[in-house]
Amino acid sequence: MEAAGSLGPGGPQSPGTAEGAASVKRSGGEAVSEGKSVGFVLVHAGAGYHSESKAKEYKQVCKKACQKAIEKLQAGVLAVDVVTAALIELEDSPFTNAGMGSNLNLSGDIECDASTMDGKSLNFGAVGALRGVKNPILVANKLLNEAQKGKLSAGRIPPCFLVGEGAYKWAVDHGIVPCPPDMMATKFSLSAFRKNRRKLELAEKVETEMIQTKKRREVSENTNDTASLDTVGAVVVDHEGNVAAAVSSGGLAMKHPGRVGQAAVYGCGCWAENTSGPNVYSTAVSTSGCGEHLVRTVLARECSVALQAEDAHQALLETMQKKFIRSPFLAHEDTVLGGVIVLRCCKCSLESESSLNTQPLLVEFLWSHTTESMCVGYMSTQDGKAKTHISRLPPGAVAGQSLAIEGGVCRLRSPLT
Amino acid sequence: MEAAGSLGPGGPQSPGTAEGAASVKRSGGEAVSEGKSVGFVLVHAGAGYHSESKAKEYKQVCKKACQKAIEKLQAGVLAVDVVTAALIELEDSPFTNAGMGSNLNLSGDIECDASTMDGKSLNFGAVGALRGVKNPILVANKLLNEAQKGKLSAGRIPPCFLVGEGAYKWAVDHGIVPCPPDMMATKFSLSAFRKNRRKLELAEKVETEMIQTKKRREVSENTNDTASLDTVGAVVVDHEGNVAAAVSSGGLAMKHPGRVGQAAVYGCGCWAENTSGPNVYSTAVSTSGCGEHLVRTVLARECSVALQAEDAHQALLETMQKKFIRSPFLAHEDTVLGGVIVLRCCKCSLESESSLNTQPLLVEFLWSHTTESMCVGYMSTQDGKAKTHISRLPPGAVAGQSLAIEGGVCRLRSPLT
Repeated sequence: MEAAGSLGPGGPQSPGTAEGAASVKRSGGEAVSEGKSVGFVLVHAGAGYHSESKAKEYKQVCKKACQKAIEKLQAGVLAVDVVTAALIELEDSPFTNAGMGSNLNLSGDIECDASTMDGKSLNFGAVGALRGVKNPILVANKLLNEAQKGKLSAGRIPPCFLVGEGAYKWAVDHGIVPCPPDMMATKFSLSAFRKNRRKLELAEKVETEMIQTKKRREVSENTNDTASLDTVGAVVVDHEGNVAAAVSSGGLAMKHPGRVGQAAVYGCGCWAENTSGPNVYSTAVSTSGCGEHLVRTVLARECSVALQAEDAHQALLETMQKKFIRSPFLAHEDTVLGGVIVLRCCKCSLESESSLNTQPLLVEFLWSHTTESMCVGYMSTQDGKAKTHISRLPPGAVAGQSLAIEGGVCRLRSPLT
Repeated sequence: MEAAGSLGPGGPQSPGTAEGAASVKRSGGEAVSEGKSVGFVLVHAGAGYHSESKAKEYKQVCKKACQKAIEKLQAGVLAVDVVTAALIELEDSPFTNAGMGSNLNLSGDIECDASTMDGKSLNFGAVGALRGVKNPILVANKLLNEAQKGKLSAGRIPPCFLVGEGAYKWAVDHGIVPCPPDMMATKFSLSAFRKNRRKLELAEKVETEMIQTKKRREVSENTNDTASLDTVGAVVVDHEGNVAAAVSSGGLAMKHPGRVGQAAVYGCGCWAENTSGPNVYSTAVSTSGCGEHLVRTVLARECSVALQAEDAHQALLETMQKKFIRSPFLAHEDTVLGGVIVLRCCKCSLESESSLNTQPLLVEFLWSHTTESMCVGYMSTQDGKAKTHISRLPPGAVAGQSLAIEGGVCRLRSPLT
């Protein structure tokens, strides 16, 4: 991690408090990468609990995803396709809860959710409870791209959200190679499934006995393993200043078949909106955590709206506190588990630079989570390598009730501007 | 229809204009219904195109749904269950595109979306692409109710959104009687399917020829039959002042299997929020129309937020214009098709009544649509019978580009307050 500094034009950082640890990193030098397109990527491998032993693997995955995105950005690929390329790397890792190695559901099957949004066209594509496709994000991306082509035959409106068997058939019809469902489970996900099944059987036995003695079932509430929340996501800005976001998830372990979480729900799993009209900033957001909590708070969209305020750090902190942890929509939840990665950017020169007549793209990026930890990685086209980090709650903070927030800033000088 | 009057405390009505026809109705007398609980219901049988020949059937269905809701309200049933009872009547009609008689998809199957939201608990339940259940709203209601009971065994978070085969299994496991899929199709829906299939085959033949001559496919864009958008919905306020909303849809005719529309998507198909914190009004909204347009504009939630403004009519008009017809999220659409029903209420006495020390529940209700027509029905516990109405665009107005807006006001004097 590099030297802490001010988070762009948004004013000074608040120091770490009981409810929010804050620190900032400056990404990249400010060298101009001659002849190549510029851009920036921020990825996450989930908000949950990352033990030291798992940390290395997660960081490695994030690094790989960043590098893939940067290759694409340098080649001039637009944000909406770059974000998909990053997600494919994250989904392909057997360690993340997305694509390969996803959590198994109650029936022992893998059903995935994924979605993506393009800040330029504002188009959206999503799949829910999809089986038998190694990279659900590819289907979401294809839905988005197909919808951009306009109406279908006989004036039919193209779908933006497909689920289950129908989503699978659409994917195969559109050239996506199916993957035998058995091949998507890994040694790790199968072992977690067997462990969870035993836990469930035991819990149900205990609860049956409790019901017989007229006790209520809430006693066993807090045994849920937050380690299983590790959805993946990414946010990207490309050389044109377009933003895009994506998210992919295997969903909660032991979920009911057919359950769809935030990763497939519009406004909840990801959001991307280029600057336009009253919006000074382009914003992109990707969320992770307990799907039901993220759906009911429409967290991705709320973060995006808030990020139009002057101070990005303060805006995200307040959103996480007021619209998530203390959201009236989650008033009955003791613990509210989730995390977000966000970026915003604008073509606003600092005073010292305006005389040079350059218009660097100022990118501010942040992550925040109420879970024990969150693994992130980020890289700009000006960086030699990706930076990765396991963000953790401040010591003594209670997961689900307090939060961590960190971020950085990066200035991209495009050879095109 | 009764005499036009002022729409509650919201100021004067704007008269019908080229872009919006406005009129208001006063529902019910102001007699106190002794000993019975009070409440109000507003239902719709879809925004689309209602020919004179269909009008009678649609009005009849809306009337039946209102009467069922009023029976329940008088019996003291809370809003969230009343709205479900109304929806069941609407779904059971073979004329509406929900439950029985729903549009068939591209494969000739019926797959339904439905959701419901409770303004009191802010809980939400939804099903998407559900086959083989006569009343999808029953499953959405049950998901909502089950989630209120707290966590599942081993601390698992109960689902709020289930799709496809998994949703079907959950429904059956929770005591909902399945319905053989063939029995859900009606003579009317089968005949529409055959007609649509022929149209599609013809369009694809024409387009193949056009591709051979290098013309683009958009030529056939405007042949979509808006008559097939007739989703159903309801909004309710009960004697405690709780609001609830629900929506149910068979989806677009000839949709791709697995396609999920707004009726299953949080914030898009329905919204309900009791008064709390800065929100002076309790609000409930249900939408109808082209699912993709309603999803991308999160229209139900947007309407609810806007309805906290002083003038409900003006707020809804502006929302339909700025956040729907001219939404930046639908910038590339020539025609934006949809409709909403909304209600808002507060316990605010008029000046003349405050001396009587009574606190009537003031209910303002409105509908607005960009489609040719929208069929609505409404009734209060003080009314002898339901009022039904086919709202139509003003003469010369273009569907998808202009709108109609109408509404009324009703004061409920509860014997309990």
